[in-house]
Amino acid sequence: MAAELEVIEQQIAAMKEQLAELSGRVQENKLSTVVFSGDLDRVLASFIIATGAVAMGMEVVMFFTFWGISVLRDKNKNAGEKDLMGKMFGAMLPKGAGSVKLSKMNMGGMGTTMMKTLMKKKNVASLDQMIELAGELGVQIYVCEMSMDLMEFKREEMIDYPNMSFCGVAKFLEEAMHSKIQLFI
Amino acid sequence: MAAELEVIEQQIAAMKEQLAELSGRVQENKLSTVVFSGDLDRVLASFIIATGAVAMGMEVVMFFTFWGISVLRDKNKNAGEKDLMGKMFGAMLPKGAGSVKLSKMNMGGMGTTMMKTLMKKKNVASLDQMIELAGELGVQIYVCEMSMDLMEFKREEMIDYPNMSFCGVAKFLEEAMHSKIQLFI
Amino acid sequence: MAAELEVIEQQIAAMKEQLAELSGRVQENKLSTVVFSGDLDRVLASFIIATGAVAMGMEVVMFFTFWGISVLRDKNKNAGEKDLMGKMFGAMLPKGAGSVKLSKMNMGGMGTTMMKTLMKKKNVASLDQMIELAGELGVQIYVCEMSMDLMEFKREEMIDYPNMSFCGVAKFLEEAMHSKIQLFI
Repeated sequence: MAAELEVIEQQIAAMKEQLAELSGRVQENKLSTVVFSGDLDRVLASFIIATGAVAMGMEVVMFFTFWGISVLRDKNKNAGEKDLMGKMFGAMLPKGAGSVKLSKMNMGGMGTTMMKTLMKKKNVASLDQMIELAGELGVQIYVCEMSMDLMEFKREEMIDYPNMSFCGVAKFLEEAMHSKIQLFI
Repeated sequence: MAAELEVIEQQIAAMKEQLAELSGRVQENKLSTVVFSGDLDRVLASFIIATGAVAMGMEVVMFFTFWGISVLRDKNKNAGEKDLMGKMFGAMLPKGAGSVKLSKMNMGGMGTTMMKTLMKKKNVASLDQMIELAGELGVQIYVCEMSMDLMEFKREEMIDYPNMSFCGVAKFLEEAMHSKIQLFI
Repeated sequence: MAAELEVIEQQIAAMKEQLAELSGRVQENKLSTVVFSGDLDRVLASFIIATGAVAMGMEVVMFFTFWGISVLRDKNKNAGEKDLMGKMFGAMLPKGAGSVKLSKMNMGGMGTTMMKTLMKKKNVASLDQMIELAGELGVQIYVCEMSMDLMEFKREEMIDYPNMSFCGVAKFLEEAMHSKIQLFI
C-alpha cells in the first residue's frame, strides 16, 4: 500500500510541475501593438483599441516605430542641433498628432479637415485627447530607438507622456510574446 | 493511511481547479481580423484568410471598421436621409465590393481592372463571391458602430449577409482575446 | 482502501490526458508574419522583427503574399516565357529588394534614396543584407502560390534563399495557429 501511495505522490508532483510550466507559457491578459503607420486614421484606430482594452481590464503596450513616431513629436518643442538630413526629415515629417493626415482621401488636407470636423460633431475624441487619455489610463508607450536614430528625432522633441520609454525590437517581442493580442498597425 | 489519502485527494482537487482555470485562459481555435483597409487587395486577402481558416475548422470573426466598411455597402440600396457631410462621404467612398480599388498600381483604375481580369482568368473568386462564400461558411461579420456613425453610413445601406452585427471595439477585443490568431488588415 | 486508490489513479490518468491536450493547445515560441506589403519600409520592419525574434530564440516563419513577393524577385534572373499580362505585371512591379520604394514620402524616388543614404550612414543593414541574414539565421520563407500564379511570377525568378517554399494560405494558418505572435504587415 505504501509503495502505491509513493507512486501516486510522485505522479502528483510531476503534474504540478507541468501545470506550473504550462501556466508560464499561457499568454497574459495583455495587448501589444506596433504603431508603424503615421496616418491619422490608423493611429486613431490604435488608440481606440488601446483605450478600449484598458477599459476591459487588459494591460496595454504600444510600440511606436517608423512613421508612427511623428505622432509623438511635440510641435512646441525644439529638437536642438541636427545635421542637414535630420533637419530635412524633421521638416518633412508631421510634427505631432495635430498635423498627421488621413491615409486615404486626404485631398490636399480637405479630407483630413472634414474628418476632424465630423469627429468633433460626433463627440469622438481627437487624437491629442486620445493620447492624453491613454496616458491617464496607464497605457505604456515604447518608442523604437533605431527609428529615432534613423530619422534623427531627439528625445527632447517628444511629447510629455507619463509612461514613455525608448527601446529596441527585443523589448516589443518580449511584450508581444506574453500578450494574448498582438496587432501591427 | 487515511490521512495520507485525504492529502492526496486535496491535491488532486486543487490541480483540477488549476487545470480548469488554465483551460479557460488558453486561446480557442478562432481567427479574429480587423478589416480597417478598404483596398481591394487587402480586403481580398482578409477574405481568403477567413475562408481558408473556416476550411481548417476554425471559427472566424471579422471586425470591419473605417475604410473597410465601404466594402459592405450595397450599391443597389438607398441610405435614406443624410445631412450634407454624410452625403459627401457617401458619394466619395466606394459603394460595395465592386467599386473598391487596389492600394497600389491603381493607375486611374487601369491596374484594378487588370487585376480583376487576371483573377477571372485564373479562376480566383471575385471579392463579391468571396463575401458570399464567407456568409455561407458562417464567418461572422461585425461592423464598427463608431465608424458607421462617423461616416454617416446607415444599416439599411449594407449588403444582405447572414451573420452581420453592429458593435463597438469591446466586442472585437473580447473575440480577439479568445482567438489563437488576430490580424489587423 | 484499494477501491479508493483506484479512484485516485483514475483521476490522475484523466488529468494527465487533460494536461497533454492543454499543452498541445498552448502556442509555441514562434512568430508568424504575413508580408503583404511590398513597401521598403514595411518589408524592412518585417525583417527587423523576424531577425530580432530569432535572436531571442524564437522560430520564425514569414509568409509572402501579393505585393510582398516583389521583394523576393532576383533582378538578375530571367523568368522565361510569360503571356502579355504576365509581362506587364513583371515590368511594372519592383524586381527585388533594391527596387522597392517607401510607402510614404517616396517623392519620385528622392525620399527612398534619402532613407537608404541615412540607413547606410547609421549602419542599419540594407534590405538585401537583412534578407541574407534572415536566411543564415534559419528564418523560413513561404511564398503564396495563388499570388505567384495571379501575377504570373515564376519560381525561377526568385532569389536564392536557403529556406524558401511555395504554399497556400492553409500552410500559413497552420503555422500562425501554433505561434505566440502573428502579424499582418
